[in-house]
Amino acid sequence: MESISKLIEEDLKHLEMSIQKLITTKVSFIKEIVNYIIKSGGKRARPILVILSARLSGYQGDLHIPYAAIIEFIHTATLLHDDVVDNAKTRRGNSTVNTVWGNEPSVLVGDFLYSKSFELIAENGNHEIMKTISKATTALSEGEILELLKTSDIETSEEEYFEVIGNKTAVLFSAACEIGALLGNSDNEKRSALKAFGYDLGIAFQLKDDVLDYVSYDAILGKHVGTDLKEGKVTLPLIHALQSAKENEIAFAKKVLDKPNMTAKDFERVRTIIGKYRGMEYTSDMTARYINEAIQYLNVFEASPYKDALITLANHMLKREM
Amino acid sequence: MESISKLIEEDLKHLEMSIQKLITTKVSFIKEIVNYIIKSGGKRARPILVILSARLSGYQGDLHIPYAAIIEFIHTATLLHDDVVDNAKTRRGNSTVNTVWGNEPSVLVGDFLYSKSFELIAENGNHEIMKTISKATTALSEGEILELLKTSDIETSEEEYFEVIGNKTAVLFSAACEIGALLGNSDNEKRSALKAFGYDLGIAFQLKDDVLDYVSYDAILGKHVGTDLKEGKVTLPLIHALQSAKENEIAFAKKVLDKPNMTAKDFERVRTIIGKYRGMEYTSDMTARYINEAIQYLNVFEASPYKDALITLANHMLKREM
Repeated sequence: MESISKLIEEDLKHLEMSIQKLITTKVSFIKEIVNYIIKSGGKRARPILVILSARLSGYQGDLHIPYAAIIEFIHTATLLHDDVVDNAKTRRGNSTVNTVWGNEPSVLVGDFLYSKSFELIAENGNHEIMKTISKATTALSEGEILELLKTSDIETSEEEYFEVIGNKTAVLFSAACEIGALLGNSDNEKRSALKAFGYDLGIAFQLKDDVLDYVSYDAILGKHVGTDLKEGKVTLPLIHALQSAKENEIAFAKKVLDKPNMTAKDFERVRTIIGKYRGMEYTSDMTARYINEAIQYLNVFEASPYKDALITLANHMLKREM
Repeated sequence: MESISKLIEEDLKHLEMSIQKLITTKVSFIKEIVNYIIKSGGKRARPILVILSARLSGYQGDLHIPYAAIIEFIHTATLLHDDVVDNAKTRRGNSTVNTVWGNEPSVLVGDFLYSKSFELIAENGNHEIMKTISKATTALSEGEILELLKTSDIETSEEEYFEVIGNKTAVLFSAACEIGALLGNSDNEKRSALKAFGYDLGIAFQLKDDVLDYVSYDAILGKHVGTDLKEGKVTLPLIHALQSAKENEIAFAKKVLDKPNMTAKDFERVRTIIGKYRGMEYTSDMTARYINEAIQYLNVFEASPYKDALITLANHMLKREM
């Protein structure tokens, strides 16, 4: 990952400046909230994808920086709204905006970021990019709603799970890569390839996230392990385990999902059930498959440092511990 | 108002069809929520402005209909989020979406409507309209946040109040009229005129709303009288009265604003204070001034049934009881 930071060192510097500069508002409180959440150390995965995809597509201008920032703003808006919907207390190791300032600013500053993003896109005036991003945000909200409808639903199928994560996560990764292709005026083949690469990478990212929620430690991930289960989110490790689990195990998982307060013991027992039916291994295998598939899509591009960087980024998905 | 309905009868029919048709989603729950709130009898003030302004500007096509629908979607999204922010229980005489389904779908379906709106605008591809609407929604969220920051602030000045309502209400009215001008390829003079007309009309609309919140009856307005005061919203009737009120009266108003539960007696006493210092009359005079100013802007247009309709609509603002 260090090699990537090195390769696009200048772009990353401009990205951070751009993130600061583009949030213009007469309301200083908005700045305060946005800075609080944006500076709290996100991985900038999505903007990095915009930058690398644009460079891979031969783009020589500098519009990839504001678009990368915009993609981060949109992502940040979804985080602000997610935390309200999930009633989340911490994110990236810090208290959430809704915990510190309440739900109201979380909702409204999220709206501000969405609107500001579209305003900035409209100013730049690339029609295809506008279409790509607005389609992605629509899918995103649909994914969030689908997830909400599936809350605590023990019968959630693998197919339904993939529909949720495809919409709520993969579509924005895919849009990030597609923007790069559009900036570089790529032909349809390359545009489709980057779009598909981003989508599969996004799926892999979410699969990894869902695995980490069962195994990683608070100090590393900056969030409490078991958050998904506590919030009633039925993710692939559990879905897979439940396909082979015994009736009493399924009943227990259902009880935990329906409970308002999951105990550490509850969580351990669900984790044991998942372990018994190899839910983690299944999910990790699936992650590897998506990553490999993603990398295959890049075959249409000639060798380049940017192509290598995207491959490194994809492979890192599997290894990451946060 | 009947004359307006008659004048644009066909357009209004198409508007309702368009509102139904444009909300395409694979998630039927979204449709359910959107129908619940959109069919609950809004006045369609903003889409009517799009239609009349487009017609006044000589527009002969049919894109004014989807844009009118989009403006209603954006308005609806703000209602969904407002009701979460204000913890509102009823709207237009019906239970709010957050009361029936909870805050989560209110936030997420609002996001869906915002995104879908931008997706639809991007599809139609009028760059200036995109800029106009995205600027308006940014201002809108800023207005909502400013209002939130001023909650229960007894020292809210008239100037601050006008900044809030300008952003949260007038800007979208203004955008609605400007879209009409843009569709009709108006010259700058006429575009500015319609934009200014919409802005002043929006201010007048909000002033009237804020007066009605102190005087109208539940059955008519479909909401409880005194809602603003209960929610800590310091509006012009009160602001004006407090400028001349005695210390003990100001102290009482402050106590009521800070209270989590306002009683009917509290409300009556605040209303008495407002009455004593003619806060309602002042606000109504101001409303009339804005309406007259709005109508003056239309002088650049030649006589036409659409011009008459806009004047009728503006004058109706003053008389409306809901």
